[in-house]
Amino acid sequence: MIERVTLPVAGMTCGGCENAVRRVVMKLDGVEEVSASHADGSVTVRFDSARTDLPAIRRQIESLGYRVSP
Amino acid sequence: MIERVTLPVAGMTCGGCENAVRRVVMKLDGVEEVSASHADGSVTVRFDSARTDLPAIRRQIESLGYRVSP
Repeated sequence: MIERVTLPVAGMTCGGCENAVRRVVMKLDGVEEVSASHADGSVTVRFDSARTDLPAIRRQIESLGYRVSP
Repeated sequence: MIERVTLPVAGMTCGGCENAVRRVVMKLDGVEEVSASHADGSVTVRFDSARTDLPAIRRQIESLGYRVSP
């Protein structure tokens, strides 16, 4: 099933950060689209829940040092 | 053998970028220390050349959208 989720993410402070987050999440199998906004402090991901899940997305963002709110 | 290399990296524009680059390179097996400076546009890596190599480090940085000069 295709799901769409918006996560509050702290620590992005420029367009380079947005791009880094977008690309690291796109590495996950099953992720179809990612947008990130440092102005909003959010990351929106469209993904196939049969192939990846929210904890994996969260870990991937946090692996770069950005903080995903619970 | 432990090597130390400094790469010119474009596209980092804040501390969040530096942190993202540092962490993504630290994911590689054999990388012992990474420092990144957006002000200098450079990334310095200390690594065990028996366990990783420069092309792998370069690919890892470029996977986040930053550009490593040739």
